[in-house]
Amino acid sequence: MSYNLLKGKRGIITGVLNEQSIAWQVAKRAIEEGAEIILTNTPMAIRFGTINQLAASINSPVVAADATNVDELEQLVDSAMQHFGGQIDFVLHSIGMSPNIRKGIGYQELNYDFYAKTLDISAMSYHKLLQTLYKKDALRKGGSVVALSYIAGDRAMRGYGDMADAKAMLQSITRNFGLIFAQEKGVRVNTVSQSPTMTTAGQGIEGMTEMIDTIDRISPLGNASAEDCADYIITLFSDLTRKVTMQTLYHDGGYSSVLPVFSVNK
Amino acid sequence: MSYNLLKGKRGIITGVLNEQSIAWQVAKRAIEEGAEIILTNTPMAIRFGTINQLAASINSPVVAADATNVDELEQLVDSAMQHFGGQIDFVLHSIGMSPNIRKGIGYQELNYDFYAKTLDISAMSYHKLLQTLYKKDALRKGGSVVALSYIAGDRAMRGYGDMADAKAMLQSITRNFGLIFAQEKGVRVNTVSQSPTMTTAGQGIEGMTEMIDTIDRISPLGNASAEDCADYIITLFSDLTRKVTMQTLYHDGGYSSVLPVFSVNK
Amino acid sequence: MSYNLLKGKRGIITGVLNEQSIAWQVAKRAIEEGAEIILTNTPMAIRFGTINQLAASINSPVVAADATNVDELEQLVDSAMQHFGGQIDFVLHSIGMSPNIRKGIGYQELNYDFYAKTLDISAMSYHKLLQTLYKKDALRKGGSVVALSYIAGDRAMRGYGDMADAKAMLQSITRNFGLIFAQEKGVRVNTVSQSPTMTTAGQGIEGMTEMIDTIDRISPLGNASAEDCADYIITLFSDLTRKVTMQTLYHDGGYSSVLPVFSVNK
Amino acid sequence: MSYNLLKGKRGIITGVLNEQSIAWQVAKRAIEEGAEIILTNTPMAIRFGTINQLAASINSPVVAADATNVDELEQLVDSAMQHFGGQIDFVLHSIGMSPNIRKGIGYQELNYDFYAKTLDISAMSYHKLLQTLYKKDALRKGGSVVALSYIAGDRAMRGYGDMADAKAMLQSITRNFGLIFAQEKGVRVNTVSQSPTMTTAGQGIEGMTEMIDTIDRISPLGNASAEDCADYIITLFSDLTRKVTMQTLYHDGGYSSVLPVFSVNK
Repeated sequence: MSYNLLKGKRGIITGVLNEQSIAWQVAKRAIEEGAEIILTNTPMAIRFGTINQLAASINSPVVAADATNVDELEQLVDSAMQHFGGQIDFVLHSIGMSPNIRKGIGYQELNYDFYAKTLDISAMSYHKLLQTLYKKDALRKGGSVVALSYIAGDRAMRGYGDMADAKAMLQSITRNFGLIFAQEKGVRVNTVSQSPTMTTAGQGIEGMTEMIDTIDRISPLGNASAEDCADYIITLFSDLTRKVTMQTLYHDGGYSSVLPVFSVNK
Repeated sequence: MSYNLLKGKRGIITGVLNEQSIAWQVAKRAIEEGAEIILTNTPMAIRFGTINQLAASINSPVVAADATNVDELEQLVDSAMQHFGGQIDFVLHSIGMSPNIRKGIGYQELNYDFYAKTLDISAMSYHKLLQTLYKKDALRKGGSVVALSYIAGDRAMRGYGDMADAKAMLQSITRNFGLIFAQEKGVRVNTVSQSPTMTTAGQGIEGMTEMIDTIDRISPLGNASAEDCADYIITLFSDLTRKVTMQTLYHDGGYSSVLPVFSVNK
Repeated sequence: MSYNLLKGKRGIITGVLNEQSIAWQVAKRAIEEGAEIILTNTPMAIRFGTINQLAASINSPVVAADATNVDELEQLVDSAMQHFGGQIDFVLHSIGMSPNIRKGIGYQELNYDFYAKTLDISAMSYHKLLQTLYKKDALRKGGSVVALSYIAGDRAMRGYGDMADAKAMLQSITRNFGLIFAQEKGVRVNTVSQSPTMTTAGQGIEGMTEMIDTIDRISPLGNASAEDCADYIITLFSDLTRKVTMQTLYHDGGYSSVLPVFSVNK
Repeated sequence: MSYNLLKGKRGIITGVLNEQSIAWQVAKRAIEEGAEIILTNTPMAIRFGTINQLAASINSPVVAADATNVDELEQLVDSAMQHFGGQIDFVLHSIGMSPNIRKGIGYQELNYDFYAKTLDISAMSYHKLLQTLYKKDALRKGGSVVALSYIAGDRAMRGYGDMADAKAMLQSITRNFGLIFAQEKGVRVNTVSQSPTMTTAGQGIEGMTEMIDTIDRISPLGNASAEDCADYIITLFSDLTRKVTMQTLYHDGGYSSVLPVFSVNK
């Protein structure tokens, strides 16, 4: 399926680890829709995952960059602009990790070095990426940036730990840097709040499978898959949504608008 | 511009009065994107406006129906299903009118017969339309319904009068009928909260031009036009947004996410 | 328990039917806190319920008035001002009824005459009451008006039917008339979104007991009772909350801020 | 004025620097309402400000503690429990500082060491305080914790810089630790989103006076003062609001519910 929605557009896709990654689905769909892209992830993720093979399959380069490191982000953006011969049209931020969750440390017993890491990797990295793009005037007027969030950034649940705070902060960065990008660059910045999705990152969360199943039953249309998410993000990168900005957009089968009661017994 | 996003899809577009109507922009774009449509409005609006000429220019039929009248809505849906030879893929609700505003009656001196009319025309008509579509099983699985709202349904302003209450109600109908349509029919129901747009309806509101200008200056990307709105709604009718439902989606250049302070001085 | 929070204040309490009524708890607590009050309900509710005995027990007058009838509201406000010898400090709106729910008519098969009644009784009555108070300049500067809402006005659930739309509208009226009352009269207008409470009205909703139990388990602090609600509303009538206005205030043990997942298994 | 709302209650008040501090108004009002309190701030703030004289005027001890340092927080809570001879009833978190704002560094040119400090001081400190209280089982059932926020945590504005992200995170901590405290300890955790207030901290923000004036004109009831805020927080510490938890409560004269348009011209 292709509509040529991104014909002639160039983008940077972060966060591809392997075929399960939402970012990979976005990359594939962007290519199908006519875009050129650059993939990026940390050196360690590149070694650990299958991004190189995936990138080869779509003829796209991979540039290693740690999104918590401003120098590496600057090199990434320089590389991308050089590769594309100019400004960039779209960027996906799909980066998040909590050492606390990885080590099974609950929200009431956080390790604060880990907490700072969670915030740095999952939220400050978004600011760093945006600030780098801003300073280098790397985004074309009419361009679009999307980050992935989760509704735990808005309402509380057990099990999502300090990632909830990181997602709340990510959504705030969306609004605040979105204001600047809109006024000064004519660029959109949004967050997609996606259904829980079984990616490699998600496998670290205890009870993840049961949680995904429960939410699937509660969500009136069922959970959105990684493929669904890619489709949606394509529309946000396209020229058809040029006045949508600074929003948290719920892509979750209606879960965010449902009360936890009768609707469970559907 | 065409991406064939709606190829093979069939829809009903309410609320086309003349070329200024948002609904007309949606109708034009739906046709460009490969859809077949039926236009509808009240008999009086059909006489008063230019819908017949517009419909002729895109080779689409017009069916007269008063959206506050269930019998007429039933005939409309029957006609549409007969015309299309089956179920419908998308519906636009773009109907709203306040006799209080028309007559310059402020929110603190409402005429209650007019208030009931405002609610009936601008909000209950949405429920009636949805209930008719539901009863007749008129929407195809994967279908999409969109209604137009305005942010005065969420926050208060002087000048929008009882339409604010109608829009709050419209957004509630979106959630509540959206739950049923999602669970039972696999159909999306959303509301687009659009920038103020100078349509024939808007001309009735005192100070409308100044208000639109002010909001345009506050909105980080400027106001979204009727054409922008049509582009956005096309994505919501397409297959790329199948897991977005029961949402109020702000299509407003970021206005909804901005505080009324420094941002004015852009 | 008494703190004299409402010493010297005068108020109107609508919606007392019998001892189960939230409004009755508010009335009792207002008296304990030093207020003088007038109770009101429809003539039929006065006959059907025990309001006269209750009123006698707190030495407060009862004035019959149908809150959907502007003439009767005007007489009510006149009576109250005469009785108190001047302006009023606080008003509770606790009025809601859905003929559709009473008759077991689901949201996808609404009777539209009943729907209009639901809106008139449960939401327009609030506007009528506020407009009457406004026109008669009946509220003292620093005064406070509270209406009771339910979270189904914000998010969807099965079973609450067209009352959800009425509550969304009620919250909109709170914002829009609250704006006028704040700017012109220095008066607060808020809505309390209360846990589901087993009152006589609630008994009409099918599965109400199970729903209340489920929500009690999901709510991190458990459901708020009618007594809890009265305590909270007393703070909103007091001078300690004079800058809180145009808000929907969730009094629900945290239910509104919780996601329907892990938190169920507490 | 005193209602004895906090008679017999014991609390910790952070963030008193001098007479301008909101925390100082809360401390004074808590004493008036019958509470015993302990004041705390960093050693540097104690030297720089007038907390010692203020504390002496209300016969309350001062315990030095850096809220970013868990060891010092543990000593603070130990001291408080020893001083009070048992559990604590209420806690105020009123701590925030952005080195970026202090140095006039805009949101599009953040220094990331400073950004991490902003988050640590203004948001992580809240988690550290809550986690310390949790681990030491220091809060009595029915207790109440309040933190101060600002609406820039919800919507974007120029000038509030990285504090906006810190406030969004603070509100998330309120929800997520509030869930745990509610379920396990029967304790409320809320955030008050206060009108901009000219405190010593606020003096560091460029254009603060003009901003406060503008918001005062937009707010339907005008800005809430530090004294108003103290009154409101007293109600949240009292037994009258025991079912309110995990909320962001807007104490802002209605500002949060108003659209930036007509309402400016009041």
